[in-house]
Amino acid sequence: MTLPDFVSVPGLSGIRFQVDYRLTGDREEAAAKAQDICIEQTVEFPAELVPAGDIRQHIFGRIESLEPDGPDAFLARISYAAEVATTELTQVLNVLFGNTSIKPGVRIERLYLPADFLAAFRGPRFGVPGLRDLLGVHDRPLLGTALKPMGMSAEALAELAYRFALGGVDVIKDDHSLADQPFCRYEDRVARCAEAVARANRETGQRCLYVPHVSSTADGTLQRALFARQAGAGGVMVCPGLTGFDTMRLLADDDRLDLPIIAHPALIGSFTTSPTSGIAHDALYGQLMRLAGADATIFPNYGGRFSFSVEECASIAAGCAVEMGHFRPIFPSPGGGMSVDRVADMSRLYGRDVIYLIGGGLHRHSPDLVENARHFSRMVRQAAGAG
Amino acid sequence: MTLPDFVSVPGLSGIRFQVDYRLTGDREEAAAKAQDICIEQTVEFPAELVPAGDIRQHIFGRIESLEPDGPDAFLARISYAAEVATTELTQVLNVLFGNTSIKPGVRIERLYLPADFLAAFRGPRFGVPGLRDLLGVHDRPLLGTALKPMGMSAEALAELAYRFALGGVDVIKDDHSLADQPFCRYEDRVARCAEAVARANRETGQRCLYVPHVSSTADGTLQRALFARQAGAGGVMVCPGLTGFDTMRLLADDDRLDLPIIAHPALIGSFTTSPTSGIAHDALYGQLMRLAGADATIFPNYGGRFSFSVEECASIAAGCAVEMGHFRPIFPSPGGGMSVDRVADMSRLYGRDVIYLIGGGLHRHSPDLVENARHFSRMVRQAAGAG
Repeated sequence: MTLPDFVSVPGLSGIRFQVDYRLTGDREEAAAKAQDICIEQTVEFPAELVPAGDIRQHIFGRIESLEPDGPDAFLARISYAAEVATTELTQVLNVLFGNTSIKPGVRIERLYLPADFLAAFRGPRFGVPGLRDLLGVHDRPLLGTALKPMGMSAEALAELAYRFALGGVDVIKDDHSLADQPFCRYEDRVARCAEAVARANRETGQRCLYVPHVSSTADGTLQRALFARQAGAGGVMVCPGLTGFDTMRLLADDDRLDLPIIAHPALIGSFTTSPTSGIAHDALYGQLMRLAGADATIFPNYGGRFSFSVEECASIAAGCAVEMGHFRPIFPSPGGGMSVDRVADMSRLYGRDVIYLIGGGLHRHSPDLVENARHFSRMVRQAAGAG
Repeated sequence: MTLPDFVSVPGLSGIRFQVDYRLTGDREEAAAKAQDICIEQTVEFPAELVPAGDIRQHIFGRIESLEPDGPDAFLARISYAAEVATTELTQVLNVLFGNTSIKPGVRIERLYLPADFLAAFRGPRFGVPGLRDLLGVHDRPLLGTALKPMGMSAEALAELAYRFALGGVDVIKDDHSLADQPFCRYEDRVARCAEAVARANRETGQRCLYVPHVSSTADGTLQRALFARQAGAGGVMVCPGLTGFDTMRLLADDDRLDLPIIAHPALIGSFTTSPTSGIAHDALYGQLMRLAGADATIFPNYGGRFSFSVEECASIAAGCAVEMGHFRPIFPSPGGGMSVDRVADMSRLYGRDVIYLIGGGLHRHSPDLVENARHFSRMVRQAAGAG
């Protein structure tokens, strides 16, 4: 019994995007894995039951190439029809890695999203040039820090923010642990910290940005971001692993918000804990964060509390700037157990377009937080050779 | 310079919840990792700079026990104050695994969420008893299938749904690949498939549920679910890895929707691809899905296209029913390359409270899909000894 419309699929433009998957195994195993991905990520149906026609020819994923990638691994470039992924980010992620994420020995290495596919996405609203314009800082790396520890009152966190801003920090974000706890309510904290940073800016003449953490319920994150805007915040931080990537995209696309967005990696770590599964650092922290509208992407720096290598961190910085249609490059923002005395070394790796994120370490230099921030500033300017 | 309010934290109830983390290494390494988690998941701040007081005593995570767990691994039970996690699911996930997800060699094994913590969460609205009541089926496992392949028209998919419902399938869901593609629009598909299943129900006297896939934009998923309700769907399927877990919770909590929710694992696979990192199968597919309101949880069955072991699948089924305050048990729904002739074997593992999910395999038995569904039904009844 033949089912209707099994062969003809209307509305296909011919536009395809490509994904590099790294597959462990010998050539035969890798070829089988690549073929499996073509089916698993699209029709998820016994291929032998699909007759010749549009489904087989266009809806199936297509192996464009299969090349060795080191010992016992291959790189498969697989293409998908744009219409399969639609213009909704959830479905794009679904096609890229939905079911295949469950399979060990398959890792997304790189996305190749053509300009005509990316045209449906706004991408980073500010990116490097826009964030630099907001700050009025064009000649050096940016200084970032975090308000913490959780448990402090909104008033105390605002006092921290004031001192860091006075000392010359450019971007002062909430620690991602700060939500809407009973001992430090979101709205109270944001209002106080925004005011404190504005007060410091009036004294310094600088344009330090306060960036609260807005991840909240599915129907509350945008509201939290709009409150931040109204309270005078200079950006918002989102954890797409907690909210879903599309919530970040929603914020980036909202003209009422119109603020830079910093992505934080909470709960996305499992994509990179295995070297042979998950999503490569540059594709995840660079390309996917840009696709979801981030203007800066926080990740654990090499040599801190986390395990990312120098090469992985360099790849993230590259992913922040790699060609992606009309998308702007974004700021890599390495952090996680950093100290000011590592700035010179980091400077060699990251160059100028970076936000150095030093949180707890900024409390360590001396008890004078304003002076600690100034010291941070001096070290960055010195390393950047910008005086 | 002492900062204000650094010591006293008001509003702590004393309620704590616990998490078992599996840590690789010898006792010394594991103890260091456990201590690191206590800080990383809470204050993320140099512990030595925090004076004695409420932050140190209550806000820090606390190691409750550290026991060997096989060779070269330990199980650390760590507790957190309820107020740190708040009653927002995003922040609960943040505390459970936010930054620590990035660290290899740490795996969440089990959550211990006390009843007074879970009281803030609705949990599964239907669960096993509620879904059984909807279907009027109490004495046997449930039969599930998926509408596919992607590329078929809404009309053709509705014809499939009709035949499967006629053959006695209980739950007919969209394949998770079906979104709102130009060749098969969401609203058209849902209206047609709901009508087709209702028509079959009138003929059979059964109450088969059509369950469309509703994952969409951050502000569109709930709308899609509400459309499904209005069109006559009997449930909705969500991929929390695509939408964020809290979007599923939002749907589960919405009294206007009031439909069972089936969770699909797209994009959450990286949590389980490493045996020593990520989140254990039962905690992820059982406990977290229930916390986020799922009434049934789809996962890859052992022996199919995926790599889950028999023991991992059994643990998921256990996690679907493990004590969690006022929460109902939910249905495990193993799928992924299953065929009808495996039902007898699966029956021994899963018992009666299971939704067998056979998708492509249901097209293989013969060209007559109604007869294939009847065969599936006979095999399930036979294996369950329910005639």
